[in-house]
Amino acid sequence: MIYLDNSATTKPYREVLESFNKVSTEYFGNPSSLHGLGGNAEKLLSQAREQIAKLLKVQTKEILFTSGGTESNNIAIKGTALMYRGRGRHIITTEIEHPSVKESMEQLRDLGFQITYIPVDSDGTVSVTDIEKAISEETILVSVMHVNNETGSIQPIKEIGQLIKKYSKILFHVDYVQGIGKVPLHFHDCQIDLCTISGHKFHGLKGTGALFIRQGVKISPLFSGGGQEWRQRSGTENVAGIVAMAKALRLTLQRQENSVAEMRKIKDCIRIGLEKIDGIKIHTPVLHCAPHIINFSIHDFKAEVFVHALEEKGIYVSTTSACSSKIKKPSSTLLAMGVPEEEALSSIRVSLSYENTMEEATQFIESVNEAVTRLRKVMN
Amino acid sequence: MIYLDNSATTKPYREVLESFNKVSTEYFGNPSSLHGLGGNAEKLLSQAREQIAKLLKVQTKEILFTSGGTESNNIAIKGTALMYRGRGRHIITTEIEHPSVKESMEQLRDLGFQITYIPVDSDGTVSVTDIEKAISEETILVSVMHVNNETGSIQPIKEIGQLIKKYSKILFHVDYVQGIGKVPLHFHDCQIDLCTISGHKFHGLKGTGALFIRQGVKISPLFSGGGQEWRQRSGTENVAGIVAMAKALRLTLQRQENSVAEMRKIKDCIRIGLEKIDGIKIHTPVLHCAPHIINFSIHDFKAEVFVHALEEKGIYVSTTSACSSKIKKPSSTLLAMGVPEEEALSSIRVSLSYENTMEEATQFIESVNEAVTRLRKVMN
Repeated sequence: MIYLDNSATTKPYREVLESFNKVSTEYFGNPSSLHGLGGNAEKLLSQAREQIAKLLKVQTKEILFTSGGTESNNIAIKGTALMYRGRGRHIITTEIEHPSVKESMEQLRDLGFQITYIPVDSDGTVSVTDIEKAISEETILVSVMHVNNETGSIQPIKEIGQLIKKYSKILFHVDYVQGIGKVPLHFHDCQIDLCTISGHKFHGLKGTGALFIRQGVKISPLFSGGGQEWRQRSGTENVAGIVAMAKALRLTLQRQENSVAEMRKIKDCIRIGLEKIDGIKIHTPVLHCAPHIINFSIHDFKAEVFVHALEEKGIYVSTTSACSSKIKKPSSTLLAMGVPEEEALSSIRVSLSYENTMEEATQFIESVNEAVTRLRKVMN
Repeated sequence: MIYLDNSATTKPYREVLESFNKVSTEYFGNPSSLHGLGGNAEKLLSQAREQIAKLLKVQTKEILFTSGGTESNNIAIKGTALMYRGRGRHIITTEIEHPSVKESMEQLRDLGFQITYIPVDSDGTVSVTDIEKAISEETILVSVMHVNNETGSIQPIKEIGQLIKKYSKILFHVDYVQGIGKVPLHFHDCQIDLCTISGHKFHGLKGTGALFIRQGVKISPLFSGGGQEWRQRSGTENVAGIVAMAKALRLTLQRQENSVAEMRKIKDCIRIGLEKIDGIKIHTPVLHCAPHIINFSIHDFKAEVFVHALEEKGIYVSTTSACSSKIKKPSSTLLAMGVPEEEALSSIRVSLSYENTMEEATQFIESVNEAVTRLRKVMN
């Protein structure tokens, strides 16, 4: 099996599952309980929070644990919009955000907020000037993703942060789900107020995530109740999952340090291989892109057909983001980049992890070649 | 170790963790992915949903997976209030609900809803007549817990359901977190529209839960995004955790069938033992109570002191619900029952699972006796 759909989800590291099991059996107490079993669980929770904060170079109190990227994005957007609605009711975002950002915005629109969607250029990048032009007296939040989940394009987060810093009442949220462990991002340097990560995208477990909330920023909680997580996210903490996520992050950031250059080489090899195949057009830009995602269209084939053709060879890729892959609509990110609809409908996403090898890349290119030849024959 | 804090959390069954590990390693695909790895994960997810629906005697489409009891309660209350706010803005609940219900209500009050809290009698039971009197033209939701998490008292859910059925625009939500696996509840027979369960209360894993939503009832989602769970709860599903929860529920309901009588005997043994100890007052009613919870006060001792005295003997109990145990306030449930404040501050909760034995109960009573004698000596 050659798994090239790591932006959809990753296989948990063995050590991550070991941690999960150890905590679930030996430290199963409720961290809110007064007794020692609770205390031990609480200690592990605190250690995991410290470890994650240190790895992300932020303060311990700035890490809120959630059930994943979707929850973190929803809290960041709806939680701040509701908290600061007295300051204004205008929010700025881009045309290429993940559905959990886009749909949160639409829900807020129903509640009377005004949403501005900033377009992107043909590389899938937003312009800082466009954001600046969109800012009004009413703007309270700007939400821009870091690495696009479909094309891998990187947004100018630092420049946007510098812009927003000039406006004291505007908060800056960044969806860092695809970037973490692949493209470094310093939250404080980039003036980020809220930042989303998801455990299962870096070999942690599904159902785990975090939201960085800069100290001083408040949210209206989505989950109210027992008052866990400083009353910002009630509910018994998934201690084992959180400890597992801390381990996954540590291991992934080690891999990043040692292997990100190799990952980029593997991706370049795939790009070069694809460029040689007749009828293939690559949508991922050459510059300002993450080392693990490459998105391309194959002329004449519906993406779904091609996904299954590769699957027959034991290769797993995707048509678009996982959560949109069953909706037979063209990718809105590609359309926003000006890709024609038909081309967008034939787009394929390859996404790497540090587990992938150069041999797999070579085999992938061979298989694409074979599949294209075979399918073209069938079609004629 | 004698663990008697099962209403705070339970130790996951070995088989439950085995399922979790198997799914996490062998079926790690994203259930939304188009390819076979995604398909396999989706199949497991569907099977788990079918299994849980069957065990709860409801339809498959009526089960929504969440991250736990707090999320389910928040969705049930805020999700329906926001969805049906056009019908009216009055909600009825009780004075003894879990914080995740109470705090959701308070958040809605801030948004302009009117909340009526129904009192309870000295047994901790609400009166159906009181609920009926509270109903107005504006009422859209009634939320009443099944088994109280602190005293184990059971509310007259069936009677309340029959009452509410007369009002077509009122929805009925039940927090079944403490009752499941101990006290049967037929959701459809009781006219329940929304019902909360939490995996880690029946030997499943933390971070897993479900909400029963009767077909036809709609909610405004807390998490919007990729459209998972019929657009009612977006986000990549925690497939391994969900499969583990299905297994935990099956095993727990088997234990219920075979061992609930024994559990009640163990609890009765504890009650009889406690009644013989000078200065102990039991708050859990004799009738209409769950088989696993017993709540009592020990005259003259702060609950915290007693929890630690028992812990020295390897026995784990709690002062109140886990999430409130670090707030040094008397239990609002006990106060609502008319228990004086000082007595409420000395209350202890013992909560059993099917893993507890009669020997443990005997040892617990001996330890309480010893601790009371020793502490009284220290105090004089």
